[in-house]
Amino acid sequence: MIRTHEAGTLRSEHAGQTVTLSGWVARRRDHGGVIFIDLRDRSGVAQVVFREGEMAERAHKLRSEFCVRIVGEVSVRPEGNENPDIPTGRIEVLVTGLDVLSEAAPLPFPLDEHLTVGEEARLKHRYLDLRRAGPAAAMRLRSEANRIARDVLHADGFLEIETPTLTRSTPEGARDFVVPARLAPGSWYALPQSPQLFKQLLMVAGMERYYQIARCYRDEDFRADRQPEFTQLDIEMSFVDQDDVIALSEKVVSALWRELGDHEITLPIPRISYAEAMSRYGSDKPDLRLGVELTDLTEYFKDTPFRVFQAAYVGAVVMPGGASQPRRQLDAWQEWAKTRGARGLGYVLVGEDGTLAGPVAKNISDAERDGLAKAVGANPGDCIFFGAGDPGSSRALLGAARLEIGRKCGLIDESAWSFVWVVDFPMFQAVDGSDDVAVGSGKWTALHHAFTSPTPEWIDRFEEDPGNANAYAYDLVCNGNELGGGSIRIHNREVQQRAFTVMGIGPEEAQEKFGFLLDAFSYGPPPHGGVAFGWDRICMLLSGADSIRDVIAFPKSGGGYDPLTGAPAPITAAQRKEAGVDFKPKPQPQNGSAQV
Amino acid sequence: MIRTHEAGTLRSEHAGQTVTLSGWVARRRDHGGVIFIDLRDRSGVAQVVFREGEMAERAHKLRSEFCVRIVGEVSVRPEGNENPDIPTGRIEVLVTGLDVLSEAAPLPFPLDEHLTVGEEARLKHRYLDLRRAGPAAAMRLRSEANRIARDVLHADGFLEIETPTLTRSTPEGARDFVVPARLAPGSWYALPQSPQLFKQLLMVAGMERYYQIARCYRDEDFRADRQPEFTQLDIEMSFVDQDDVIALSEKVVSALWRELGDHEITLPIPRISYAEAMSRYGSDKPDLRLGVELTDLTEYFKDTPFRVFQAAYVGAVVMPGGASQPRRQLDAWQEWAKTRGARGLGYVLVGEDGTLAGPVAKNISDAERDGLAKAVGANPGDCIFFGAGDPGSSRALLGAARLEIGRKCGLIDESAWSFVWVVDFPMFQAVDGSDDVAVGSGKWTALHHAFTSPTPEWIDRFEEDPGNANAYAYDLVCNGNELGGGSIRIHNREVQQRAFTVMGIGPEEAQEKFGFLLDAFSYGPPPHGGVAFGWDRICMLLSGADSIRDVIAFPKSGGGYDPLTGAPAPITAAQRKEAGVDFKPKPQPQNGSAQV
Repeated sequence: MIRTHEAGTLRSEHAGQTVTLSGWVARRRDHGGVIFIDLRDRSGVAQVVFREGEMAERAHKLRSEFCVRIVGEVSVRPEGNENPDIPTGRIEVLVTGLDVLSEAAPLPFPLDEHLTVGEEARLKHRYLDLRRAGPAAAMRLRSEANRIARDVLHADGFLEIETPTLTRSTPEGARDFVVPARLAPGSWYALPQSPQLFKQLLMVAGMERYYQIARCYRDEDFRADRQPEFTQLDIEMSFVDQDDVIALSEKVVSALWRELGDHEITLPIPRISYAEAMSRYGSDKPDLRLGVELTDLTEYFKDTPFRVFQAAYVGAVVMPGGASQPRRQLDAWQEWAKTRGARGLGYVLVGEDGTLAGPVAKNISDAERDGLAKAVGANPGDCIFFGAGDPGSSRALLGAARLEIGRKCGLIDESAWSFVWVVDFPMFQAVDGSDDVAVGSGKWTALHHAFTSPTPEWIDRFEEDPGNANAYAYDLVCNGNELGGGSIRIHNREVQQRAFTVMGIGPEEAQEKFGFLLDAFSYGPPPHGGVAFGWDRICMLLSGADSIRDVIAFPKSGGGYDPLTGAPAPITAAQRKEAGVDFKPKPQPQNGSAQV
Repeated sequence: MIRTHEAGTLRSEHAGQTVTLSGWVARRRDHGGVIFIDLRDRSGVAQVVFREGEMAERAHKLRSEFCVRIVGEVSVRPEGNENPDIPTGRIEVLVTGLDVLSEAAPLPFPLDEHLTVGEEARLKHRYLDLRRAGPAAAMRLRSEANRIARDVLHADGFLEIETPTLTRSTPEGARDFVVPARLAPGSWYALPQSPQLFKQLLMVAGMERYYQIARCYRDEDFRADRQPEFTQLDIEMSFVDQDDVIALSEKVVSALWRELGDHEITLPIPRISYAEAMSRYGSDKPDLRLGVELTDLTEYFKDTPFRVFQAAYVGAVVMPGGASQPRRQLDAWQEWAKTRGARGLGYVLVGEDGTLAGPVAKNISDAERDGLAKAVGANPGDCIFFGAGDPGSSRALLGAARLEIGRKCGLIDESAWSFVWVVDFPMFQAVDGSDDVAVGSGKWTALHHAFTSPTPEWIDRFEEDPGNANAYAYDLVCNGNELGGGSIRIHNREVQQRAFTVMGIGPEEAQEKFGFLLDAFSYGPPPHGGVAFGWDRICMLLSGADSIRDVIAFPKSGGGYDPLTGAPAPITAAQRKEAGVDFKPKPQPQNGSAQV
């Protein structure tokens, strides 16, 4: 090593020792003829002092982020010069030797914590951005998260097994990235959306307990905070039921939060059914830091004269103190609702004297008006927002309004951690016309994924009522974020084929696309299930970051573009030709051709 | 868990307990009305007994590899029935309950250790192949290897950091796999041949100690034992010299062999220079389990009348006892040499009386004949093989002959482990006309890779004599296998550009291909270096396997084909269109076009 000590480890007990340090010039101050440098390495910062004379002269040439090696003597700082804010604040190093290991050009942005530069610039110079304390800490945290999860899993007998990434399509609701196979022109590999099929095959193979911190690929239209490649902690277990997978997941997650979040999760984590989550919170990933709930008013308004409320579902959510919102804020709520695809957001203002105001109040009956505040638990001064229409979209709107209320009214404790399992998911959802990558071509598609087992009470008859069939699926939610999800899988070839049939995948198509899995199920597959955690998102939450990009060493920006390397980029005609991209199979001579 | 115990953990102290086991029917024996099943799960095998009556009747339907759950009482086996060969051999389980969890069709091959079926069939049913003890053990070993290496590295302060796999080309001597970018039609990502550029950027970023068990991709013409995707343990360190990287590597490797190979490697591992390895063993990855060495006879034959030996290099290797080979074996050596691209393999047979025979003996001078046996250390009864011509190919031929001699004569101790570092590699090698993917278009290309630092004595003048310039590169060799290699990297923009220039990469091309690395070097890059271990190969050696395919869960067979999933496969026209594969940029309107 071209140093003897790490800068951040020096303490007063090192006083008198000659040390060699290597690192970066973080800050320079000139005091008369003496120059003070904050020398930074991975361990922290130490103050190094260039006394007047030749040393100071040479130090004059040092600029921010020069990489240097210094030799010097550790010395206790003169009284009054200590800096209690840093661990090395009681010492300084009096420099006797200086090597400039490399120089630095003027920086594109200053490397302090309060950056004003845009993300594109940070990502283009990510190697500078990562020198900042916050981003560097995020990388350390992520490495620790890996270690902690692995320790838990190894202790529980899990095997880490790598699955292929040049493989066959694994349809899971997104587009595949494809890779031309030069040695088999006209054929392509797909990058996996997850190791799903392979981990199930590993269970058929008798591995029993598998995990992998796995790279996954989804070619999506990049919404905020999506990456074309992302990472999941992928787990699969044999001979288990849902409670086993949940218990194991809780072990992993509680270890992470204990060691990295300084938070002891109370176990077991509470569970809520999908139906209840939708009904009470209008979301399958409810943020339970917020007490506000939806009220179902369908029954309440069953005889209403108000046409809008003569709907399959009417619900409400209360904004505490919302009656005093100025008109333009109430208008802004309408705009907000419209951007979410709703017509608007009906509301009633509860006056301090209990009288109701606002357009909805005029349209409902006297009796409805009289009982409303009590029915929804509103107090004088509150605002009641309504959603009416089909239950799904109305609840989703109210669920979103609920979160918006929480933010606007400061009802969310940002320092709290709130975990909940959402369970009893439906097996299928009706295909939304806009979903152009649904698995299969049926009216129904899998809500989780195509390999999720129905619960025992549905296993023999899920096709009779696909909309109500329940699956053995579970999602872990933290503060309104889905941390991960999983399911008990189908391990019976016939059941799998029946599930495919509901999704519009006939036996022939199933055999063509998933034949290897179905074939595997012919050879004594064990009951199995698993879970996958969104690793980027978990690390984001643990590090208090705003975006998963902050916990990825080299993330892509919008549209999958990497400002650092400029990827993706054009390829040459030669590369294209060689890769076999444009291979055209020779036309097969037809039977009965010219010779005959 | 749908079991209470793992089958392989049952011992006589469990006698009297009622247990539930889940696993596979490994073997069935019928003894009169009683049926014995070897029930296998991941932990091992236990004998379960179905007594006469209903249980035995139901057990009659069990076939190999049915997946079952049984309930029964653990019982000490009757005296004389113990099986000392298995850990559960003192007990059996008397079954009172049986569930068939899933049935198995007749197997495509029996799941025993001595498989006669071809590899293609094994890979097609890899989920059955992995149920065999050997392949299952290989998966466990690999998982343990990961754990052991990670423990060493975390204890040494290394951060595990993931680098991108949808990225820009990283030219390292093979073709890139490319991936069309749907959102930027006409642009492509490349899958990385290694994380090389990113790990160097992480050093510029001040991470100081990085590792990753990284998936890498090389689109090669598949030679035996190559995979299109493979794994390396990738390491990079800042502020280090070669000895630091070597010492860290030895920590990792010795931990692996101690825990998984039951072998204590004597440290430090000896080092040999590239020049010495080539001269003594004709290989840069010498197998030192074999004492046989090459003898350089160039000086000895400097005045020879034999035209063939009037060459830049003449060398020899001795085959002990080889003089008694029958003529057809000597002919077979000629054929062997020809398949390696040589004209043949000259030889001299040393008779028991010391007289020399064979074609070469007739052509050399009397003096040369007289001193030859002594010069090469041959004894009566030995055979001396010769190589003459340019040093590189002649030594390679003799090096290969040396290994062949070792195998034929049983001189290699297959149970031994022999480690050696090869150091002092040349920086460049002359471009071989057949190498169509060399980095750059110059007469020279990098021997290790394009980012390898010259040694201090060459750093200012490597372009003066590229063929002799030395690099700070090192390879770890075990039993003739390269386990890994690395180098101290260039961390100076000018030096990197000069190295590119020798390889025929001008400043413009360098900026286009590696601009982001060169730019990073403008901002105080630290001195750094690293190493990468071929993880598949290391696991192969540790598990005693013959092929890296044996330690990969789902390997490809020849030509990159996966017999299990059928990947690669054709894609649909719609996928092709959507991926933007055939995107043609709209022609740009020219200045001074029709409108003017």
